[in-house]
Amino acid sequence: MQCKAVTLKRRPMGIPTPDDFSVITTEVASPENGQVQVRNVCMSVDPYMRGRMIERKSYVPPFQIGEILNGGAIGRVSASRHPDFKEGDYVQNGFGWREAFCADASTLTSLGELKAPASAYLGAIGMPGMTAYVGLLEVGALKEGETVFVSGGAGAVGSIVGQIARIKNARVIGSAGTAEKVAWLKDDLGFDYAFDYHDGAIEAHLKEAAPDGIDVYFDNVGGDHLQAALNNMRPFGRIPLCGAISQYNATAPVPGPNNLAMAIGLGLTLRGFIVSHFNHLAKQFRQQMETWVSHGDITYQETIYQGVDKAPDAFIGLFTGANTGKMIVTLE
Amino acid sequence: MQCKAVTLKRRPMGIPTPDDFSVITTEVASPENGQVQVRNVCMSVDPYMRGRMIERKSYVPPFQIGEILNGGAIGRVSASRHPDFKEGDYVQNGFGWREAFCADASTLTSLGELKAPASAYLGAIGMPGMTAYVGLLEVGALKEGETVFVSGGAGAVGSIVGQIARIKNARVIGSAGTAEKVAWLKDDLGFDYAFDYHDGAIEAHLKEAAPDGIDVYFDNVGGDHLQAALNNMRPFGRIPLCGAISQYNATAPVPGPNNLAMAIGLGLTLRGFIVSHFNHLAKQFRQQMETWVSHGDITYQETIYQGVDKAPDAFIGLFTGANTGKMIVTLE
Repeated sequence: MQCKAVTLKRRPMGIPTPDDFSVITTEVASPENGQVQVRNVCMSVDPYMRGRMIERKSYVPPFQIGEILNGGAIGRVSASRHPDFKEGDYVQNGFGWREAFCADASTLTSLGELKAPASAYLGAIGMPGMTAYVGLLEVGALKEGETVFVSGGAGAVGSIVGQIARIKNARVIGSAGTAEKVAWLKDDLGFDYAFDYHDGAIEAHLKEAAPDGIDVYFDNVGGDHLQAALNNMRPFGRIPLCGAISQYNATAPVPGPNNLAMAIGLGLTLRGFIVSHFNHLAKQFRQQMETWVSHGDITYQETIYQGVDKAPDAFIGLFTGANTGKMIVTLE
Repeated sequence: MQCKAVTLKRRPMGIPTPDDFSVITTEVASPENGQVQVRNVCMSVDPYMRGRMIERKSYVPPFQIGEILNGGAIGRVSASRHPDFKEGDYVQNGFGWREAFCADASTLTSLGELKAPASAYLGAIGMPGMTAYVGLLEVGALKEGETVFVSGGAGAVGSIVGQIARIKNARVIGSAGTAEKVAWLKDDLGFDYAFDYHDGAIEAHLKEAAPDGIDVYFDNVGGDHLQAALNNMRPFGRIPLCGAISQYNATAPVPGPNNLAMAIGLGLTLRGFIVSHFNHLAKQFRQQMETWVSHGDITYQETIYQGVDKAPDAFIGLFTGANTGKMIVTLE
């Protein structure tokens, strides 16, 4: 069997362009003993993948030029030579950017019975949702009634952060990059205050939205947002450091916040994390989030691109604000 | 009774100069009911006081122009009209920068029986020692056998951090600003590695001293040190943010570390603190530190200026590297 896949043609400089990627046709093997063949239903593009396109030491090894890119995907088993997997099963896998593949069963996670569309397991009920959940509740240690600020509030992670915070009776402030996204946060997701970060100083918005200060700043973007938040934190506030999308395409080092010393007198905690640090909470998370989603306590939006050859455009769109909610590439 | 005292004549720009201060003669009242008159034995100058010379909102209110400066001091009761204090008692107080004063008994802490010279209660057994103790063990959560890096290693706080770390069987790396200080750290305090931060890249020293990385970076200075440390932390490392002396005299905002995003993948925690956040540990600290000092497990050094009129020079010396260990002004 043959399928289409996307390779990294060259390392992007700044914001990636379509020319940094190639669409190829590749052979999909038939499974040998212990292996499973999978046809992907949908795949994820995520901001962290930009870091893997750089040749450097990091928490995940860099992508190699000329090789098929990897990333989260949901597929269905098309052929199996492993007793735990049978044809038609939904499986979560790390073999995105391709329509199909054959791999050892140990690299797959069976999703069992789905309680939501498959793509939700790449978003609200998947890695971004779990990032929001552990980042806000474990790293951020949110307490009832506190004030939360989340940057990138209309993103796959940020939109879930804000909704979990609302469920926990927190006051929620969010930033986003367009008026439409801001309207979504306020009108549909119940944010108490949302603003377009292009529209005036971030700090002025924060002073208006939270005159008594912020208890938890969930940082998805770094840069100006972090600096403005540091000036408006309450004593013993927590800052989960989840991402710094404002800097992922920088071609030279970007100076950090010039007011980190605010953390001293206020006793602030800035703590970085990635979702895999909390794998022990995966089961708890899935149960809780499936319940929230099925009850309508958490809603989500997807921006969908169709076909693996559109995956580069979807990925580039993450850095140009093309997505509201989770960016998904469907492969069926 | 009259005494000499130091006032803030004007707000310093950059590194303070003697012209920013005035030495005055002031009247010391006789105690009324509930009050105590105290003659100070010695006083402390500390880097944090620089921040109080700026007109801004902070965790302690700014000093006012023309008023006598405040700060930690140890004195002896010269007259008392409160039953808990009698003549000759040693008291810890916040009325430094003056030879004597009269105040409500509630503003004083009786030191009881001293187990070390009075000045030690401004240093190793005082605020800087307790800052080191809670910063390393509570904020830094040091575990046996870990690797610690402390900047400003020859300072009042840093020299105690390094020695507590050694007691906890940690490997200790320290930076300081002169060859003499570096020799003190290595030869007398038992640091495993110490370097002059003027001498080559900080990061090169860290890579040599801790090829497997740093578990706890105790940050007294901010700036280049913090950036270099962030590039050399081990997964789940902790960074107690204690001070940023490299920036206290800056006349414009200083950019922060350009690699704060290192904290994300490594799961690092940066946590600011001041010693008063841990006042509940004061008794435990004093007992432990008096034991360590009396057994010779912790030694300390003082740089001593004589007379309250020398207090401005002592204070300025903090920013020009004039002190090894604790800077003390004796007032007897």
